[in-house]
Amino acid sequence: MTGFPRDQWFVAAYGSEIGHDLFTRTICGEPILFWRTRDGAVTAMPDRCVHRRFPLSQPPSRLVDDQVVCGYHGFTYDASGKCVAVPGQTRIPRTARLLPYPVVEQDSFVWVFVGDPANADAARIPRAPWLVSPDYTTVAGMEPLQARYELLVDNLLDLSHETYLHGGYIGTPEVASTPITTEVDEDAGIVYVSRHMDDAECPPFYSKSTGLEGRIARWQDIEYTPPCLYKLHSRIAPVGSVPNPDGTDPDAFHVEVVYAITPETETSTHDFWCVARDFALGDEDVSAFLAENNRTVVMQDVVALNVLEKVIATEPEGYQELSINIDTGGLAARRMLKRLCEKA
Amino acid sequence: MTGFPRDQWFVAAYGSEIGHDLFTRTICGEPILFWRTRDGAVTAMPDRCVHRRFPLSQPPSRLVDDQVVCGYHGFTYDASGKCVAVPGQTRIPRTARLLPYPVVEQDSFVWVFVGDPANADAARIPRAPWLVSPDYTTVAGMEPLQARYELLVDNLLDLSHETYLHGGYIGTPEVASTPITTEVDEDAGIVYVSRHMDDAECPPFYSKSTGLEGRIARWQDIEYTPPCLYKLHSRIAPVGSVPNPDGTDPDAFHVEVVYAITPETETSTHDFWCVARDFALGDEDVSAFLAENNRTVVMQDVVALNVLEKVIATEPEGYQELSINIDTGGLAARRMLKRLCEKA
Amino acid sequence: MTGFPRDQWFVAAYGSEIGHDLFTRTICGEPILFWRTRDGAVTAMPDRCVHRRFPLSQPPSRLVDDQVVCGYHGFTYDASGKCVAVPGQTRIPRTARLLPYPVVEQDSFVWVFVGDPANADAARIPRAPWLVSPDYTTVAGMEPLQARYELLVDNLLDLSHETYLHGGYIGTPEVASTPITTEVDEDAGIVYVSRHMDDAECPPFYSKSTGLEGRIARWQDIEYTPPCLYKLHSRIAPVGSVPNPDGTDPDAFHVEVVYAITPETETSTHDFWCVARDFALGDEDVSAFLAENNRTVVMQDVVALNVLEKVIATEPEGYQELSINIDTGGLAARRMLKRLCEKA
Repeated sequence: MTGFPRDQWFVAAYGSEIGHDLFTRTICGEPILFWRTRDGAVTAMPDRCVHRRFPLSQPPSRLVDDQVVCGYHGFTYDASGKCVAVPGQTRIPRTARLLPYPVVEQDSFVWVFVGDPANADAARIPRAPWLVSPDYTTVAGMEPLQARYELLVDNLLDLSHETYLHGGYIGTPEVASTPITTEVDEDAGIVYVSRHMDDAECPPFYSKSTGLEGRIARWQDIEYTPPCLYKLHSRIAPVGSVPNPDGTDPDAFHVEVVYAITPETETSTHDFWCVARDFALGDEDVSAFLAENNRTVVMQDVVALNVLEKVIATEPEGYQELSINIDTGGLAARRMLKRLCEKA
Repeated sequence: MTGFPRDQWFVAAYGSEIGHDLFTRTICGEPILFWRTRDGAVTAMPDRCVHRRFPLSQPPSRLVDDQVVCGYHGFTYDASGKCVAVPGQTRIPRTARLLPYPVVEQDSFVWVFVGDPANADAARIPRAPWLVSPDYTTVAGMEPLQARYELLVDNLLDLSHETYLHGGYIGTPEVASTPITTEVDEDAGIVYVSRHMDDAECPPFYSKSTGLEGRIARWQDIEYTPPCLYKLHSRIAPVGSVPNPDGTDPDAFHVEVVYAITPETETSTHDFWCVARDFALGDEDVSAFLAENNRTVVMQDVVALNVLEKVIATEPEGYQELSINIDTGGLAARRMLKRLCEKA
Repeated sequence: MTGFPRDQWFVAAYGSEIGHDLFTRTICGEPILFWRTRDGAVTAMPDRCVHRRFPLSQPPSRLVDDQVVCGYHGFTYDASGKCVAVPGQTRIPRTARLLPYPVVEQDSFVWVFVGDPANADAARIPRAPWLVSPDYTTVAGMEPLQARYELLVDNLLDLSHETYLHGGYIGTPEVASTPITTEVDEDAGIVYVSRHMDDAECPPFYSKSTGLEGRIARWQDIEYTPPCLYKLHSRIAPVGSVPNPDGTDPDAFHVEVVYAITPETETSTHDFWCVARDFALGDEDVSAFLAENNRTVVMQDVVALNVLEKVIATEPEGYQELSINIDTGGLAARRMLKRLCEKA
């Protein structure tokens, strides 16, 4: 465990999860209370009454208009976290307030900034425009992971595991056998890992959704912006097809796989996953197939990573892993995460 | 957690719980074995064989007349804790004995003294005579609480929470809005908190049991003798009625609510509760109503305090609460408890 | 807890448990992977891929001929622990290997050596030849114990507990009341405890299996070779019968009760038990009776020792037991175990 990166933006929820009801989620060990105010904005504040630490999301705590009333003693807060009523007296202590978290709703996600709000620069939030673009159809979900977020980062940065852990779903022999290229943009804080398979088996995930048969070109271009946003640009095309010089790529099918990797506690993680495609737009059968299939794949990872967390819990201190070429991207990501944690 | 107060009397059980069977309960982290001897006295000794620590309450351990036989190797103890038989030899080691706990059975409770028996002064045990008085009818119960006892002390010393946590049961708006008066008798070791509502809604708990309708005078006079005994003298009367100068109070209904707050472990508590009334004596419908209603109220507290214990388990060290006027009694109780723990 | 004895042989499994499938068991805190190769030998190596610590016994890890393929990224190991394939490259890192554990299959058990393999001397493994002898019929089992192995050693070295914990099964009053003799062979590393009851009740365990009725001679001769192998030579005969000077003993029934006591973690144990008899050979009714009855007895121990482990977990540090004559063998065993742990 390298700790939590501080002064960072994390995906807390899909926007669709938060309505005019109290909603709670723990991010980096901090329980956070959310609701959508009547003007449509999402609030975020500590889910803990300043008085006797009762969770404001816990019934009988309740939302009255745009104020939350603590279910224990009635301390009442407005949408900015300011305390507006306490029991037994009219004077409200000056320090009775909940410090709100900076929030940005963007690309279907609710992002919160964990750290010093003075450092919250919304321009630094990485984008995933496909998730709300009319040119794409997206399926998405979130699975709770009983493992530290670093294990999910390792997992996603090295897709050679598809061949073994996801064989029969998205894995074929070529994923493990094709070498990768890795690039690290230290200034932008991005790790790139590419694997271009020019003549590969088409796994069921893509054959059933695209209708392609036989061998394909399959390109995987990973773009990870630590700590939270992971994008896999996936290109599926007939063997021999390449994009045009102007960037258009009419013979190919494009899938933008997006993960948001949000630490819940030191040993658990919110595993948000989205699959956006530029074909079969609005086709509900294809959407249902991809949603079910991708969830199966995510759950294969969840089972494996939960096992790894248990292995870590019982292994002797100082246990050393062995890394090889496929790990280059993951190791670069670890170095970046380490710096984000140390800076804090 | 301030630790356990030492050299103190605690309620271990209702007398009715202990018969001529082995009975075990952990008090302040110490597992204690009880049984009622054939002459009617209650024994109390460590629930742990001196030989290989087998619990004497654990089958096949058993009571034979007034001796307990360990179910592992047969070490046998009499009602004073003296070992009277060991296997394989006739000589019994001098140190083979269980040090009994001082016990007093009083006011329906079995009190045990945890600490140095030389300091056990039965005259210091606070009284609750209504629980065994023919002038009162009592309903009672005990709920296991997965929270430290201090949270229950906080809860009971500040009844403004009735309005929120127990709304619809014993809470009405006046409880939270009426200021309290607090008095601390350092010599006697008692905290008093009073709230006299002279024109208040009558909650269902009292309207259904007394038959009073409309607005009432509702007085709450708390008397807490740390660490264990909490009494709420509750007076319900028509608006405007006051007790006579001679103390008689014929127009009022009196309810003596008694709690015994007994630490089980550092994070769990035995929550004994009793409701004694001076009206509808022997009326089984009223008894059933008050028993069910009060148990519901206790369980609302149990749920809330169990949540608080979990909050404490995951919050950062040094988290600071914010206290206001309603907390005056609770803070005084905390100071007294702290002294009782330090003295130990 | 005195820790784990190091540089020692432990029973990991019955040979019958291990076939041409991946099998895992944790010994002294180390998860170990086993399988039987096609030539019949049992392998033993760490159950943890050198790459990212995935358990090699965890699906989709799988055995392909005599090689195990990691289910996460496909690292492949042969039966000697050597890595023979990794994904994405042909060069295999020199350090990619799993250090095998020395294994000996003997007397129905699979023994593994935990410690420095250079110190593994198979001649030091204690024997239990009855378990595979045609002159004996054996029933056996293994129960997981949620208690440290020392508690099982204590239990087995002092059989006076049979009278209390196993009354009605193998316990009669004479076991607790008959004194023992204890001998310690420091050079051979063996503790002997004997109890010869020359005129005793016959417990159901023996009356139903031997057909003996009334009083019997019952000899219990314990031979414990720390840390793992415990043998109880049990002799049941008509009162007055003694073995012949030449060692033959035609009037007696002999039961060799063998336990292998293998630490799993610091607070859990694999409790292997075997009952070998030299009478009613091949009689399935007698086998079924002894298997069921002995398993019941073992489970009585399991329940009791699991309770003791919980008692230890909550008791104050420095709690002192009281020992008497019956504990002489157990105390000798503890001293030997302590030395085995310190030597490590």
